[in-house]
Amino acid sequence: MSITVYRKAHFNAAHRLYRKDWDDEKNKSVFGKCSNPNFHGHNYELEVGISGSIDKETGFLIDMEELKNIIKEEVEEYLDHKNLNMDIPDFKEMNPTMENIAILIWDRLRNKLNSKFKVSVKLYETPRNFVVYTG
Amino acid sequence: MSITVYRKAHFNAAHRLYRKDWDDEKNKSVFGKCSNPNFHGHNYELEVGISGSIDKETGFLIDMEELKNIIKEEVEEYLDHKNLNMDIPDFKEMNPTMENIAILIWDRLRNKLNSKFKVSVKLYETPRNFVVYTG
Amino acid sequence: MSITVYRKAHFNAAHRLYRKDWDDEKNKSVFGKCSNPNFHGHNYELEVGISGSIDKETGFLIDMEELKNIIKEEVEEYLDHKNLNMDIPDFKEMNPTMENIAILIWDRLRNKLNSKFKVSVKLYETPRNFVVYTG
Amino acid sequence: MSITVYRKAHFNAAHRLYRKDWDDEKNKSVFGKCSNPNFHGHNYELEVGISGSIDKETGFLIDMEELKNIIKEEVEEYLDHKNLNMDIPDFKEMNPTMENIAILIWDRLRNKLNSKFKVSVKLYETPRNFVVYTG
Amino acid sequence: MSITVYRKAHFNAAHRLYRKDWDDEKNKSVFGKCSNPNFHGHNYELEVGISGSIDKETGFLIDMEELKNIIKEEVEEYLDHKNLNMDIPDFKEMNPTMENIAILIWDRLRNKLNSKFKVSVKLYETPRNFVVYTG
Amino acid sequence: MSITVYRKAHFNAAHRLYRKDWDDEKNKSVFGKCSNPNFHGHNYELEVGISGSIDKETGFLIDMEELKNIIKEEVEEYLDHKNLNMDIPDFKEMNPTMENIAILIWDRLRNKLNSKFKVSVKLYETPRNFVVYTG
Repeated sequence: MSITVYRKAHFNAAHRLYRKDWDDEKNKSVFGKCSNPNFHGHNYELEVGISGSIDKETGFLIDMEELKNIIKEEVEEYLDHKNLNMDIPDFKEMNPTMENIAILIWDRLRNKLNSKFKVSVKLYETPRNFVVYTG
Repeated sequence: MSITVYRKAHFNAAHRLYRKDWDDEKNKSVFGKCSNPNFHGHNYELEVGISGSIDKETGFLIDMEELKNIIKEEVEEYLDHKNLNMDIPDFKEMNPTMENIAILIWDRLRNKLNSKFKVSVKLYETPRNFVVYTG
Repeated sequence: MSITVYRKAHFNAAHRLYRKDWDDEKNKSVFGKCSNPNFHGHNYELEVGISGSIDKETGFLIDMEELKNIIKEEVEEYLDHKNLNMDIPDFKEMNPTMENIAILIWDRLRNKLNSKFKVSVKLYETPRNFVVYTG
Repeated sequence: MSITVYRKAHFNAAHRLYRKDWDDEKNKSVFGKCSNPNFHGHNYELEVGISGSIDKETGFLIDMEELKNIIKEEVEEYLDHKNLNMDIPDFKEMNPTMENIAILIWDRLRNKLNSKFKVSVKLYETPRNFVVYTG
Repeated sequence: MSITVYRKAHFNAAHRLYRKDWDDEKNKSVFGKCSNPNFHGHNYELEVGISGSIDKETGFLIDMEELKNIIKEEVEEYLDHKNLNMDIPDFKEMNPTMENIAILIWDRLRNKLNSKFKVSVKLYETPRNFVVYTG
Repeated sequence: MSITVYRKAHFNAAHRLYRKDWDDEKNKSVFGKCSNPNFHGHNYELEVGISGSIDKETGFLIDMEELKNIIKEEVEEYLDHKNLNMDIPDFKEMNPTMENIAILIWDRLRNKLNSKFKVSVKLYETPRNFVVYTG
């Protein structure tokens, strides 16, 4: 009997989509205005889902305060008010698309959460574009 | 060829998280400010999903007016403007966590809906914390 | 390793729910005020989901600009500011319920998108009633 | 010491923007796709504001249940699931723009509310276009 | 040249609307289900507005971090996860209607903010009922 | 008899809050993490309000398509996917706080709109922080 709880969080960051091994023209044709050399940015809104069984003693799947703190440490403190390309080592060689950011977040949370839980990540890059990754 | 329709509803309630067999100190350490002896409360926002096949004659999966009325009778009239711990028999011995409330709602709806349908429940305890239960 | 990206869009349309082979009384008893002979209407809000694998070169599942344009051509230009019963051939004989509109949209998008992708459609008829179709 | 309370409501309707004394070409050039002869429609979302002084005895500005019922009778039952051009006498000669609908709603509510209150109306025609009228 | 900045916050609380000097029947007839003797509750969502002139040196009207902290100390820590009737001295003799809660919040913030600023408070008791107080 | 219509728009941008004539330590103490030298960014959500009298012939205050296009040209094309500090001349010497961005937008729109209208600008820097400027 599985159930899933969700917690929202958010961070603001600058980024640029491009490949170093492509010239400006190619980057522009593939990534459009997202390849602006001086960066642009987003308010990323995050929903983390945790699936598993309810603890009979507490009626909790997981303590939401604990989940909130893990998200704060692993995601908000790592990514908030940062330049994803310049400040985050994971994106030195990898394009910070919303797909890749979602996978990075999932990996960081998966690593800190009890293996009995399933983890999912929904990440809004804008109110109109978002991504879901479940591992 | 399955399809799922969703209907939103809402109710407001007071509750307290605690176990009678634990002392105040233990309740506080596990449930934090949610164990305030005088209760606190929430606007619960509910999304009920019904999955199945479309009726060829009407183009409906289910008559949404009928679904709205079932939710009103089984959920809103039962839980709205109540103290979950004191007024709802199901929570006399069970902690009214969002997980347990979602399961109670699912059970009550499942009982009233045609068995050909699958039922899911998404319950927001706050705009930032929510739960999904699918049976 | 599958991931899903989502793009929102919207269109406004008039419609009426009824069957030509039923008299007014029967239409009224089944479809209620939705069978008003002079039509009523909605702001339909759409979320299109595309699932598949990330392109290693770009970090994209699909170019969101391309997806935006396909939705614009196949859904917005086809349905926006229309009377679904009178202006859309698909609904000459089929009731324009939200279920049938979602399936029509899914079919039109499925037809234009690379077969390596899975497609899902979430359609809000009102902020309180919506439907999900995944094929 | 003035304070303002607000109540939300909603209705769905079809409409068409045009002038009978203009030909199709002129209507099209002024009203664009909103002049589609077969109508289109919207989910209108309404916020009604009432300003005045608090009743010391109850702590209410106005009983929100009473306000809810007045909005239901004067707005929802009058406009919901209607064709504004064909079913609503006020729009037989007047264009049902969001501006004119807001004024009609304000007039109907003003007429039913105690003259000691100030009344304001915010009407969303879509989530992106809305109007405020305060008399 | 005045400008207004806004900051959102939130708290969850239980309350009951009633007058001690009225019997149950009268309380029920005036306050309806809001007078449930065992309380009910809400997620209160708050928007605080501060009006004044921009500081030329920083480009800020007010440091939003400072505003966030004042709201946290004066509102969230005072009201969150509380029973408004039992835990908050201001409501020992005064009904905790949304109107009175908004005025209490305004008074507490006004007291801590520089007198050069104008202060406004918007308080959502539910997503459908809210109040604005500007002093 | 004045009425106000509103239109939403949005743009994404990178920025940094700092003064060139202050050292890093002072910038950090005043602007906190917003002074990150490598920038961060936001999805700016905009609501433009236009007040005036209704045109009796059309029932419009202003043609919303025209307003949409003016916002697109003056705001979205000027600011979207830009680094506000590096790409926008107005912010070469002025800090791109939400207050200053709102005033810049107001000035650009005021300049293009008929002087018979009043103009207001509401700008969300995040879903939790926003500003209103009315000239």
